[in-house]
Amino acid sequence: MSAEIPIYDPELLTKYNLGERHETLKEDESLCVRFLELLGELTEVGNISEKQFQEQFEFMKNSHGTYYCTVIIDTIKDRVVGASTLLMERKFIRGCALRARLEDVVVSPNYRGKQLGKCIVEILTNLGRTLGAYKMTLDCKDSMIPFYESLGYAKEPGNSNTLSIRYAASSNPEPKL
Amino acid sequence: MSAEIPIYDPELLTKYNLGERHETLKEDESLCVRFLELLGELTEVGNISEKQFQEQFEFMKNSHGTYYCTVIIDTIKDRVVGASTLLMERKFIRGCALRARLEDVVVSPNYRGKQLGKCIVEILTNLGRTLGAYKMTLDCKDSMIPFYESLGYAKEPGNSNTLSIRYAASSNPEPKL
Repeated sequence: MSAEIPIYDPELLTKYNLGERHETLKEDESLCVRFLELLGELTEVGNISEKQFQEQFEFMKNSHGTYYCTVIIDTIKDRVVGASTLLMERKFIRGCALRARLEDVVVSPNYRGKQLGKCIVEILTNLGRTLGAYKMTLDCKDSMIPFYESLGYAKEPGNSNTLSIRYAASSNPEPKL
Repeated sequence: MSAEIPIYDPELLTKYNLGERHETLKEDESLCVRFLELLGELTEVGNISEKQFQEQFEFMKNSHGTYYCTVIIDTIKDRVVGASTLLMERKFIRGCALRARLEDVVVSPNYRGKQLGKCIVEILTNLGRTLGAYKMTLDCKDSMIPFYESLGYAKEPGNSNTLSIRYAASSNPEPKL
């Protein structure tokens, strides 16, 4: 991989003083490996080859302002200690609006209690506003509701349900999207 | 606008026998106007210029398998009577997985009771599976839960909350995403 290619323009973080401790995910092998290790704290990550990672990274990077994968790095220990992705979805409703979504928030277990979760949620919430979204949403477990409420998120009365279907692994998914 | 350019490959619908009554949204002025009128039944749409619509349409079309805007047309009356969008989100988790999202489901009030809502949700649910997503999610009002449950969707116990922040209209959003 070529080192140091950012998944989105890092100037967005500095220009609006959104966060000194935050960095964009970069196409740097060591950084990416540590990023995936951290994601493993959140959920199943599985075996991802360098090629797979690179293809997904390139797709996201070339999606013109859709994926904002953001990390917090302990520069002394050179570790990825927090991460989350802001997803910007285009709509036709509301004057061709943008809806922001907060995804895959994770903080290293060794770094909990340092408000890194608060820190990364706040910066991506502000980034969503800066990019012009009309709202930002997330889905979360019951146990995380007080945390997100403390940062300004709320359930909309009568309209706050996430429903899902989990698919069985397909033996023959459509190869080309 | 050039007529008949589809927002995604319509062969995806026919190849997998996903739905005879469904069509992709197309870059056709009359169709787009009627599509926006229908979306007005769901929520605020606002005044969208032809240029704005076209730019959003082009962005979505060029997003390589991210936006699947799908409509049901009454071919006799030449009206758009149902619509929804499947959004495919790229992830790094779960082996660089795809997460499918069902958005902006709407059926014309004059066509309710004909199972068009069921019809469009089922086809996009099957399309999400066909495209290789590991799960498909949606958020909905309390009153819609029984409808989606009847189509196989469920709340995950302890993990089915949608939280949001609504931003005030920004006077100066970042112009380039």
